[in-house]
Amino acid sequence: MKKHILVVPGDGIGQEVTAVGKKVVEKIAQKFGHEFTYDEALIGHVAIEATGDPLPQETLEKMRASDAVLFGAVGHPKYDNDPSAKVRPEQGLLKMRKELGLYANLRPIKLFDELLGASSIKPEILKGSDILFFRELTGDIYFGEKGRKNDGDTAYDIAEYSRYEVERIARKAFDAAMTRGKKVMSVDKANVLETSRLWREVVQKVAKEYPEVTVEHQFVDSAAMLLIKNPKQFDVVVTANLFGDILTDEASQIAGSMGMLASASVGDSTGVYEPIHGSAHDITGKGLANPMASILSAALMLDISFGLKAESEAIISAVEQTLKAGFRTGDIADASTPKDMILGTEAIGEEILKRI
Amino acid sequence: MKKHILVVPGDGIGQEVTAVGKKVVEKIAQKFGHEFTYDEALIGHVAIEATGDPLPQETLEKMRASDAVLFGAVGHPKYDNDPSAKVRPEQGLLKMRKELGLYANLRPIKLFDELLGASSIKPEILKGSDILFFRELTGDIYFGEKGRKNDGDTAYDIAEYSRYEVERIARKAFDAAMTRGKKVMSVDKANVLETSRLWREVVQKVAKEYPEVTVEHQFVDSAAMLLIKNPKQFDVVVTANLFGDILTDEASQIAGSMGMLASASVGDSTGVYEPIHGSAHDITGKGLANPMASILSAALMLDISFGLKAESEAIISAVEQTLKAGFRTGDIADASTPKDMILGTEAIGEEILKRI
Ligand SMILES: CC(C)[C@H](C(=O)O)[C@@H](O)C(=O)O
Ligand SMILES: CC(C)[C@H](C(=O)O)[C@@H](O)C(=O)O
Repeated sequence: MKKHILVVPGDGIGQEVTAVGKKVVEKIAQKFGHEFTYDEALIGHVAIEATGDPLPQETLEKMRASDAVLFGAVGHPKYDNDPSAKVRPEQGLLKMRKELGLYANLRPIKLFDELLGASSIKPEILKGSDILFFRELTGDIYFGEKGRKNDGDTAYDIAEYSRYEVERIARKAFDAAMTRGKKVMSVDKANVLETSRLWREVVQKVAKEYPEVTVEHQFVDSAAMLLIKNPKQFDVVVTANLFGDILTDEASQIAGSMGMLASASVGDSTGVYEPIHGSAHDITGKGLANPMASILSAALMLDISFGLKAESEAIISAVEQTLKAGFRTGDIADASTPKDMILGTEAIGEEILKRI
Repeated sequence: MKKHILVVPGDGIGQEVTAVGKKVVEKIAQKFGHEFTYDEALIGHVAIEATGDPLPQETLEKMRASDAVLFGAVGHPKYDNDPSAKVRPEQGLLKMRKELGLYANLRPIKLFDELLGASSIKPEILKGSDILFFRELTGDIYFGEKGRKNDGDTAYDIAEYSRYEVERIARKAFDAAMTRGKKVMSVDKANVLETSRLWREVVQKVAKEYPEVTVEHQFVDSAAMLLIKNPKQFDVVVTANLFGDILTDEASQIAGSMGMLASASVGDSTGVYEPIHGSAHDITGKGLANPMASILSAALMLDISFGLKAESEAIISAVEQTLKAGFRTGDIADASTPKDMILGTEAIGEEILKRI
């Protein structure tokens, strides 16, 4: 198979982990006889530094022209601590999502058995958890009008959802549930928000088309609690952009570490595959970052954008074998991990490559 | 001391737990020689049924005329599953918060040592956790304009914060931090939301008045993750209404169960003291509800609204002794709890009363 992949490492540890992710993809190409070509482009803080624009037109064009995007992370503490900054790395990320119509963000939360001990949650609570989040990604309070009034003394953000936006993400969630445990939990705050009431209305309607699927509606506060209390009760979760952002980060603790979690953003055109972790400037450049989220994002890319199921599974299995062999990165090591089994970004990447 | 207390049980288990909370308050009055008088009023679904209004004028007037309000819960599944309902129990709760100017919601998350095993989080991660949340309670997306447009096909909710709203809650959080671990974590989503950027700006400014306090800013997604990963790193947390709603429910898992968590809503006038749990209609009327959140809310009332520190501590100590004696409600029992030590709402209330 011939495919053209755009690599967009972005900021911070995005650079380090995406480099390893790309190596894994190339190893798969060699092994399975595919012909992948690559290009690279800028986004986020590095793009601002180079061009003044967090999402240069050139990057967007390259994305549109590629078969899939392997993405790193964006963000820089410089902007976080300066609330008045006008140009920000995240604007590039959000614009990319909007421009490419990436309305569905899939975040699978699956715990490798070898990491049962790495979580702060008790192993018996975790064992067997397997959750697939569908986070809506191009609407909500992320994309509504925002600004200041009263001489800058009042700030506002408008959350907005239209029927069709809820419908298309709900349908994706129900379709996925049919191939899994046939359970969908829809998370909203319908006791307070009008957008949530529309959300619930539409999900109830879509649900009628899937009589085999059991639907549950939870308020976001309650869902945040249940995720920790009893993660095994979850199968497919569908929720709005902001709630999905919060709940999936929280759910990373089910998988032992954020460093293990991949995501796929899909919709109208090119799919984008990225770790759910951020740019993590505190460990940038130290070679300590866990590249597995990027590697598992590459696996999602092969599966979802290219339909290469066996290739995708070869990657997941190599990660599993590496964990079985006892290798860890710092974020997933625990008191019982021997010091010499704790590897850096590149070294654990090599172990995974060996096992493909 | 003479005080007039308004008891507002509200909906579902609110009725059962508040009855026990009130008994505990009266026991304290007898024991310490105070003269408390009581009245009762309606809110939520029961108020709608009786008067058509989720917060009848009479209730509001009684609240204003009282020295403190002991509150239960509001909500009913009937409205949750009907997104088009025009009158809802929660409107009563929100109107009460606004009308009484209850802008600061204090939610202490403290784990009784006896319940170390009841949480889904590992005991060694939990041990020693002691967090005090300040949730802003009268602004944000809860109270901005909301509605529909495009023939009802688009819904919107406006989040709004003004400088003075952030300032007053931030100041309360910093004041509290000075009496505790001198650490404040402010939680926002300043990389996306304009309201969060205003929030961060103001918190940074207020922080300058408290040079002894260490301030940390976290994005809400990251905070949701850290709460589970390392709850011990938290001291005082200050955050917006919606984020506070989500994070405190999540944090209930640190305390073993939502059934243990009390809250105080304070501001311009009468303080309102309520469990953070909801109306829980699935267990209503069965006598199974854990009354300790209501009892501990009463303790907060004595401390914060009446300045009765010893009385407040007598309640907390009675709860502790009851747990030490091995008594549990169903929500905080675990595999090692003997069946005959698992008590219902009234029976565990009696055990606690005995120990005051
Ligand atoms: C960086 C930030 C804007 C982004 C988001 O909130 O969507 C991130 O947290 C994510 O989850 O991809
Ligand atoms: C019932 C609901 C409106 C309320 C809220 O969201 O504030 C509740 O969850 C709470 O935390 O007090």
